[in-house]
Amino acid sequence: MPLLKSWIDSANSPETDFPLNNLPLGVFTAEGAPRCGVAIGDRILDATGLEEAGLLTLSDTPVLDLPFWNEVMELGPDAWAALRARLQDLLREDAPERDAVAPFLYPMDGAEMHMPFAVAEYTDFYAGRHHATNVGTMFRGAENALPPNWLHIPIGYNGRASSVVVSGTDIRRPWGQVKGPNDAAPRFAPSARFDLELELGAIVGQNSDGPVTVAEADAMIFGYVLLNDWSARDIQAWEYQPLGPFQAKATATTISPWIVMRAALDPFRARTPDREVPLLPHLHEPGPMLYDIALEVELTPDAGPATTIARTNYREMYYSSAQQLAHHTTSGCPMNVGDLLGSGTISGPTKDSRGSLLELSWGGKEPLRVGDLTRSFLEDGDTITLRGAALGDGYRVGFGACSGTLIAALPDPYAR
Amino acid sequence: MPLLKSWIDSANSPETDFPLNNLPLGVFTAEGAPRCGVAIGDRILDATGLEEAGLLTLSDTPVLDLPFWNEVMELGPDAWAALRARLQDLLREDAPERDAVAPFLYPMDGAEMHMPFAVAEYTDFYAGRHHATNVGTMFRGAENALPPNWLHIPIGYNGRASSVVVSGTDIRRPWGQVKGPNDAAPRFAPSARFDLELELGAIVGQNSDGPVTVAEADAMIFGYVLLNDWSARDIQAWEYQPLGPFQAKATATTISPWIVMRAALDPFRARTPDREVPLLPHLHEPGPMLYDIALEVELTPDAGPATTIARTNYREMYYSSAQQLAHHTTSGCPMNVGDLLGSGTISGPTKDSRGSLLELSWGGKEPLRVGDLTRSFLEDGDTITLRGAALGDGYRVGFGACSGTLIAALPDPYAR
Repeated sequence: MPLLKSWIDSANSPETDFPLNNLPLGVFTAEGAPRCGVAIGDRILDATGLEEAGLLTLSDTPVLDLPFWNEVMELGPDAWAALRARLQDLLREDAPERDAVAPFLYPMDGAEMHMPFAVAEYTDFYAGRHHATNVGTMFRGAENALPPNWLHIPIGYNGRASSVVVSGTDIRRPWGQVKGPNDAAPRFAPSARFDLELELGAIVGQNSDGPVTVAEADAMIFGYVLLNDWSARDIQAWEYQPLGPFQAKATATTISPWIVMRAALDPFRARTPDREVPLLPHLHEPGPMLYDIALEVELTPDAGPATTIARTNYREMYYSSAQQLAHHTTSGCPMNVGDLLGSGTISGPTKDSRGSLLELSWGGKEPLRVGDLTRSFLEDGDTITLRGAALGDGYRVGFGACSGTLIAALPDPYAR
Repeated sequence: MPLLKSWIDSANSPETDFPLNNLPLGVFTAEGAPRCGVAIGDRILDATGLEEAGLLTLSDTPVLDLPFWNEVMELGPDAWAALRARLQDLLREDAPERDAVAPFLYPMDGAEMHMPFAVAEYTDFYAGRHHATNVGTMFRGAENALPPNWLHIPIGYNGRASSVVVSGTDIRRPWGQVKGPNDAAPRFAPSARFDLELELGAIVGQNSDGPVTVAEADAMIFGYVLLNDWSARDIQAWEYQPLGPFQAKATATTISPWIVMRAALDPFRARTPDREVPLLPHLHEPGPMLYDIALEVELTPDAGPATTIARTNYREMYYSSAQQLAHHTTSGCPMNVGDLLGSGTISGPTKDSRGSLLELSWGGKEPLRVGDLTRSFLEDGDTITLRGAALGDGYRVGFGACSGTLIAALPDPYAR
């Protein structure tokens, strides 16, 4: 698919994440209260304003009156397609309604971004072959790196929806109970091995109350965000056996402010890697379910400058979000509009394509060079920025930046 | 505390779960739409109706207009105390407003019960010493029964709020991926080892966005419900390493229709057992945080009759809900009104006090006698009913029944 040209010049630049082909959805404040908006070049289109003015009608009653895109999700896939078609009509090069739309554009620069949707529940997966192999080798040795079930089901665990925050939110270094391998007893301390995880998040846009196929699951996905699954490795190491990560993953999970709709990514579909063992029918893929999305992780220490510490691609995943969602429903687990599924850490096969510091510094044994500095894990003041885009011919379909700065731990909350 | 006498005779019986001392909160339908109600003897008091009539005022605006008790929780502990005081005033033996209140009473028999609150997020713990020892012995051998962290932190995992249902909801036997120890490859099959878990659920009634102490956590708890954490043991055994239970616990979790407020349980506070190792400050208890609540599990096969298969007490837990909630906040994890915390399976020290069939039948090796039948795990048509009450002098503060019937699996959802 070629670039679709817009009457907004900045949307036609090969550098923007937000051409007419993309039209990702967010919630912003330019003046007054938060409103639903659409990114186009260096502008935000006030979608709530368009609806109020009768220029964008998706339903008999307003669905952009609350600062969340959940109501649009609830309308279903036909409305999702109608939304994109109408927005493209209003913003294409020869749009007849250009003059009516122009007053609803705000500069992206300076707008405050909010959570683009209300997260119902949050599930995180462990579905990257390279990441699972790396982490498994460190934690259990190369012989036992991949758990016996890993090639048969996408391993996932329920996370904490209340901890999901939008890009730009500071992340407070957590305290927690930790016990090093040589410690006689556990102690309560600020996490000393605080890490990032580069992931993509899939947003469930439809309800289900029984098992669904991978094709049905794919159709239920409304869109995708970048996702940083902040992880306290020292808390995790002590707590995770036998029931999985808990407080290690509950401090925060940062998502990009823009939801890229599934339809915008359709031209970039990619197959999962060859299966190493055959999958059972509930995980059969009806077609390519991954996407060719170039991803990078940037680390900026307090004093700068920014260094790109990893480059990888979402295509590297072993299981797609559609497979994860289908697996999630096998037990009859009800899924709801606004459920968020983290892909799992997206690491590539090479050292410089690893999506976490745990892997990049090999558990701290091989500190990573970051400009003039080194890092095993994150230091106070470090900012992590995730970026990602599907690359078309002369344009990109991107997510914008997904950023968070680690700030110093508070004093011991229990020393009172 | 003695029995508080009510003008409703059935509330003064030593057999009722619902004397004036209790006043648990539910949502019911007698006629028309679901309404907030309070159990008193064999009656339900229409609290929504009382609010509409101006007989029960908790706030400047209605808080019982929606069929959930969450709005009352949001008002905070002073309002919770005011609610109880006003209800006791209206229902005590010599209540002056007796005639005004009488029209708002409905027979409990025949009323339909609904979820008493909207579950925000659901966390389940593993905090019973006997249960953890039993399960650990079966899964990892007696040597490694208790994980190294178990005596230092309440082990928990995030569950699935969307799967929580009210007593009386049928439970459909789930399908899932399973692999027996002697199977060459996994297969997709209906769970053959479907089980119950006897638990108490604590309902978080206040928000927090940073670490809280055990005393603060206790004050945040609005009330308790009985909770059956249905578990597919065969799915769990295959999926739970390394990130914990996922689909094995996602089919359903049944709660009792009545929330017993914390204040109603206050006279029955009990200490946690002696600590086997000292706890770090974030888990220090300011006083007795468990409750003396007698519990039982009843199994009724399709053709009857009912058999009590276990009797135990909530006092047996190693960690209290307040400790669990405090631990849940250590990382900065935001907690919200409507969060539900499962206590973990409540097993006692003896064979007949075990809170799951996994333990009662020792993993199926010692099938349990149930009347003329035997059970290793649940059969289609089996109804499990949990009951629980704190026993006062001549009265009981109970939860009512927490029931669910296991119905047959659907045909293979992926054979199409």
